[in-house]
Amino acid sequence: MSEPLRRRLRDLGIGIGRFDVGPNNAITDVAGVLVGHHTLRRGTGRRKVGSGPVRTGVTAILPNAGKIFTDRYIAGHFVLNGAGEVSGLTQLAEWGLLETPILLTNTLSVGVASQGAIAWMLDKHPTIGVEHDVIIPLVGECDDSFLNDIGGSHVKVEHVRAALDAARGGAVAEGCVGGGTGMVSFDLKGGIGTSSRVLPEELGGYTLGILVMTNVGRIEDLRVDGIPVGRELGPAFIHAAKRPNLYGSIIVVMATDAPLATSQINRICKRTALGIGRAGSYAAHGSGEIILGFSTANVVPRGRVQRVRRFDILADWAIDPLYQAAIECTEEAIANALCAAVPTDGVDGRVVQALPLDRLVDIWNRYWRDCPPSPDAG
Amino acid sequence: MSEPLRRRLRDLGIGIGRFDVGPNNAITDVAGVLVGHHTLRRGTGRRKVGSGPVRTGVTAILPNAGKIFTDRYIAGHFVLNGAGEVSGLTQLAEWGLLETPILLTNTLSVGVASQGAIAWMLDKHPTIGVEHDVIIPLVGECDDSFLNDIGGSHVKVEHVRAALDAARGGAVAEGCVGGGTGMVSFDLKGGIGTSSRVLPEELGGYTLGILVMTNVGRIEDLRVDGIPVGRELGPAFIHAAKRPNLYGSIIVVMATDAPLATSQINRICKRTALGIGRAGSYAAHGSGEIILGFSTANVVPRGRVQRVRRFDILADWAIDPLYQAAIECTEEAIANALCAAVPTDGVDGRVVQALPLDRLVDIWNRYWRDCPPSPDAG
Amino acid sequence: MSEPLRRRLRDLGIGIGRFDVGPNNAITDVAGVLVGHHTLRRGTGRRKVGSGPVRTGVTAILPNAGKIFTDRYIAGHFVLNGAGEVSGLTQLAEWGLLETPILLTNTLSVGVASQGAIAWMLDKHPTIGVEHDVIIPLVGECDDSFLNDIGGSHVKVEHVRAALDAARGGAVAEGCVGGGTGMVSFDLKGGIGTSSRVLPEELGGYTLGILVMTNVGRIEDLRVDGIPVGRELGPAFIHAAKRPNLYGSIIVVMATDAPLATSQINRICKRTALGIGRAGSYAAHGSGEIILGFSTANVVPRGRVQRVRRFDILADWAIDPLYQAAIECTEEAIANALCAAVPTDGVDGRVVQALPLDRLVDIWNRYWRDCPPSPDAG
Amino acid sequence: MSEPLRRRLRDLGIGIGRFDVGPNNAITDVAGVLVGHHTLRRGTGRRKVGSGPVRTGVTAILPNAGKIFTDRYIAGHFVLNGAGEVSGLTQLAEWGLLETPILLTNTLSVGVASQGAIAWMLDKHPTIGVEHDVIIPLVGECDDSFLNDIGGSHVKVEHVRAALDAARGGAVAEGCVGGGTGMVSFDLKGGIGTSSRVLPEELGGYTLGILVMTNVGRIEDLRVDGIPVGRELGPAFIHAAKRPNLYGSIIVVMATDAPLATSQINRICKRTALGIGRAGSYAAHGSGEIILGFSTANVVPRGRVQRVRRFDILADWAIDPLYQAAIECTEEAIANALCAAVPTDGVDGRVVQALPLDRLVDIWNRYWRDCPPSPDAG
Repeated sequence: MSEPLRRRLRDLGIGIGRFDVGPNNAITDVAGVLVGHHTLRRGTGRRKVGSGPVRTGVTAILPNAGKIFTDRYIAGHFVLNGAGEVSGLTQLAEWGLLETPILLTNTLSVGVASQGAIAWMLDKHPTIGVEHDVIIPLVGECDDSFLNDIGGSHVKVEHVRAALDAARGGAVAEGCVGGGTGMVSFDLKGGIGTSSRVLPEELGGYTLGILVMTNVGRIEDLRVDGIPVGRELGPAFIHAAKRPNLYGSIIVVMATDAPLATSQINRICKRTALGIGRAGSYAAHGSGEIILGFSTANVVPRGRVQRVRRFDILADWAIDPLYQAAIECTEEAIANALCAAVPTDGVDGRVVQALPLDRLVDIWNRYWRDCPPSPDAG
Repeated sequence: MSEPLRRRLRDLGIGIGRFDVGPNNAITDVAGVLVGHHTLRRGTGRRKVGSGPVRTGVTAILPNAGKIFTDRYIAGHFVLNGAGEVSGLTQLAEWGLLETPILLTNTLSVGVASQGAIAWMLDKHPTIGVEHDVIIPLVGECDDSFLNDIGGSHVKVEHVRAALDAARGGAVAEGCVGGGTGMVSFDLKGGIGTSSRVLPEELGGYTLGILVMTNVGRIEDLRVDGIPVGRELGPAFIHAAKRPNLYGSIIVVMATDAPLATSQINRICKRTALGIGRAGSYAAHGSGEIILGFSTANVVPRGRVQRVRRFDILADWAIDPLYQAAIECTEEAIANALCAAVPTDGVDGRVVQALPLDRLVDIWNRYWRDCPPSPDAG
Repeated sequence: MSEPLRRRLRDLGIGIGRFDVGPNNAITDVAGVLVGHHTLRRGTGRRKVGSGPVRTGVTAILPNAGKIFTDRYIAGHFVLNGAGEVSGLTQLAEWGLLETPILLTNTLSVGVASQGAIAWMLDKHPTIGVEHDVIIPLVGECDDSFLNDIGGSHVKVEHVRAALDAARGGAVAEGCVGGGTGMVSFDLKGGIGTSSRVLPEELGGYTLGILVMTNVGRIEDLRVDGIPVGRELGPAFIHAAKRPNLYGSIIVVMATDAPLATSQINRICKRTALGIGRAGSYAAHGSGEIILGFSTANVVPRGRVQRVRRFDILADWAIDPLYQAAIECTEEAIANALCAAVPTDGVDGRVVQALPLDRLVDIWNRYWRDCPPSPDAG
Repeated sequence: MSEPLRRRLRDLGIGIGRFDVGPNNAITDVAGVLVGHHTLRRGTGRRKVGSGPVRTGVTAILPNAGKIFTDRYIAGHFVLNGAGEVSGLTQLAEWGLLETPILLTNTLSVGVASQGAIAWMLDKHPTIGVEHDVIIPLVGECDDSFLNDIGGSHVKVEHVRAALDAARGGAVAEGCVGGGTGMVSFDLKGGIGTSSRVLPEELGGYTLGILVMTNVGRIEDLRVDGIPVGRELGPAFIHAAKRPNLYGSIIVVMATDAPLATSQINRICKRTALGIGRAGSYAAHGSGEIILGFSTANVVPRGRVQRVRRFDILADWAIDPLYQAAIECTEEAIANALCAAVPTDGVDGRVVQALPLDRLVDIWNRYWRDCPPSPDAG
């Protein structure tokens, strides 16, 4: 299909929230966080399990510039709705530590993504699996079977390695890339989106970034900063087959350089869920809405190196701006995924439309430009 | 202070969400749910601990028309942020049962409300406390110390009894009544609010009701159905002292006649939290945002009457409409609290303004009436 | 009744576990932890609600030598079975902070104990309740209605104050004192028990102490270090009325000077539950088995004093000895409660027997002395 | 190595607990529960990653005689310590449903076991992965790298299929079979163990079965029904290399035909953890101790077949015997694993000894036979 020009939400003149964005408006604005994609896209026509069409891939988030196995981070999570899988989540929840990359892919490729991550780490750390250094990689998934021959197991170990090897800082490709290639969100083409916030110095000056793989929601519920964009577009906008309501998921990764304990990261991840809700999800029964988070501020070295370690930890009273940042950043990352994604065909000739950016701007402007703020607004 | 005419949100022409409301648009639309208030309001001027001014009270929710001790309900909960207290919550979480009324009051009156509820139940069930029938009443709280002499312990056992005795079905008084008398929400006068939804028959025809005691939020974050009403009003609208950001809480009670298991009620309570988020709370560090829920569809009799009981339980695939209803109902209950509450003075001459209904309508109309839906809206 | 000589478990020549005990073998071995009791005991004969007999009281644990409001500790918890109440638990779980004393009393006195703790703290910190410094005291309960006129509300605010004022370091009175006065455990007289462990220097040298209020279990399940003492005593040993199986609870308070994060304290509290299990509880449906824990190593000052604080935190790989210490200490604290408690009569002439120390020693010796360790035992 | 005669615990004259065992004293006593193993064992000598030695395998638990995809069961879980992985756990926790087999294997084979289970289910249900019927199989793991070339990825999809195809009712092979082939527990050879209980009719007559894959514990902590067998054997008994303390795990699967809701199964799983504790685990930091449970009494059909379903649910007051059964059954299943496992060599010539059954009987008899019960024992 022809791919129309896509732009990020802010490039359309639309911003969400009160805080400034970072240089890339991406999770990579948190120092040391790298992102890589490997996209698999081939074939058209009827689904033939094992043959295609293929609309899937792998996205890798590498914390600590790839040194995460030896120099671990404090981590946390929240499960808004658990109809999904992030392998390794139980250990992350128990230990509050991140010691592997985070991979995002389709539901039936979690196993191979896990194997690929292990293989890639074994190359770097050959003692893994030899002397009690087994690891359980974090692999999150959404179900892309509406467009992708998910039963065909098209993701291979080498694709996982490729995503990991491709991880870079700087601008992050969004939309139909990596794990997001075949995802559908709010009945529109979804996928990968990201955003970041930098708190003012007087609130700590911290950077917080969000990356989502969004496969969630129905068009009638879509909101952009509260504005009911989906309602305005109208259900009739979707002139192709819609997925059943029940399905869809979203995996969110939150990174920050604010110095946080596990319990604080868990709490921020919970606020991230509020951001998912503001974007229009009601966390449907069949939707896996899982948030992982980590802080890059304290390193927890592997091995029995020191009985007591000194950590810098943010005072709880100072955490509220991070809550707000996490919410607005999540809303914007979801919107960015929709803004970047292009119309995509898939199995059985299904087509998923893209969010129409001109219509989005029109709707936004009618609400905001044509409706001037009241006289005494701050 | 003079009390201007207050109206409910829908009476202003503003509705939230897609489902119909019940006859009273109140939690009492769920059959057998009764609500009573006892309001304490006296004195003005400087805070003199023990003397006043007094702006507080007790709200009682009586499930099962007061027979809840013998004919118990299945119940659940969710803690969005736990900087608050609902006594009895641990047992509710463990057993998934509701066997006492639910009381709402100020933070330092939880103990006396608990004693009052026990005393009231002892009158009805004299075996309590004699033969292993101790109970742990559910008492939720918010901190009304901005307006109320909270340290003065003005709530007495007889006031708790009075609220319980006052419990009725039908229309529910909102705003500055009962436990909500001294509450502040979004820097405006808050308090008690309620709303209900009735699902269409083809979705089960269930009724779901919400009652909130809202003491949460900052004006700049207030939203009504996504519309940034607080931003439009502007921070300058608040021309009196504002509470520090850190404080504020909200207790939510959800009731439904849909036949649900504990795990399902827990899940609905979690969606209710998304409704709190949509109304503008980011669940600040210092805010107690706790949701209780119960289903009236199955009765669990007290005592060892039957080893195995037959329950009607909703299929999980049919739960999504209840999620949506809980979210929109929570948003509307919060708005109803603000719409009903009147400007209130309190300790040290502080005054908390009410949400200006004319301004609310103006803002709403500019967004909705002046901005006609796009041609192809559904 | 005549009170026979009672001795602590170790004074009988019985020790549990591998680690050394502290100087007092009590929770007070953790520096700054004080314990006080106020015991209410009067009347005999038939229960007359409001008149007696009275067999109840209050036990107070004062962390940080009473400065806990301003210099707070990191805290955690675990609920083994939640058929009970610790008021303030939700906030402790959310914030991971301890900022009030911990009170233990009977189920229907939680409210008054909470009020008493607030009153006592108001005296010391008059700004509480004036300017957004409301507190939610931690008050744990067990049901002593088998012996005590629990419905009579005999615990008054002054008794709570008295327990708090009585708090001291050093040896801790055990058995039928304070909140433990009317408690029954394993069909024997229970109540308050405590124990401590000091890790060897090479494991960190930390002190960990446990205090229990035990009201849990049936005699046939009682174990001392695995030895089935209750089975040996035999059900026939109980020649008086037994409580229904369903009831009984245990509240455990764990203190340590090991430097721990909230998530680590939560994990230690979970191991404490294993200690309850080893002593013979199966955490019955009707039993409230709740564990609170705190670390005295890091102080979290009240107020907005510092955005980022430096904490010493134990490495996770070094936590295992604390797990073991918590388990063995819990087992011994429960045994100490039984060893210290004296035969007690109560309402309606009921009598609860004490654990027969001579029989305990006999049973122990048959297992251990008469059964010499095998030749190659370490 | 030569394999000495091994017997089950009860065949040695040792029983744990009060309830009767089922016909097979195995999880298969719960009607419809099938178990299959596929064992991989080849090579000796030095570890050469990819070549061996291989000491590993797969164990499959098939609920509902293989019809679990269409006729699902109510399920629950508990995480005692989460340093491990059960893929699919998040969804089980959210939905409280079991809809796939449960597989047990080594840590680095979770992915392939998941793929194998999906492949096997796709054969039976070709719509999986085609139309929104993705599944997330439950795959639990322990780390067998002490004996097994875990990094060599020796478990293949066909081995997973073989374990599933081998699933049968009746007696269950224990010890060094299937996923248990390379496991070490209490410094002795561990692996698969199982046990069951049948409640007396007056307690409901339900059957409850446990199957463990045990890789947990240190010899000095091993207990059999409270008797400190490991202490008696003495650390010197282990004359070979010991694993570091930190490692080891146990996965427990609980099945019952008692009619239970998810929240009740969660609670029983928590008691199962007490059984793990009684057997001698303190749930070390590095140990994955995860319990899954399901009830076969109610079937939840796949698909949108009925909005409201009728369930038989056990009254909570009747649940205590199931708690006790779960604890004693878990203890016995762990002991059975040790009793069945044979001495095993593995990578780098390491040898893990078996529990010496003659010594076990000697120790047991000294405690129990030579120490006659006291006169008045019941």
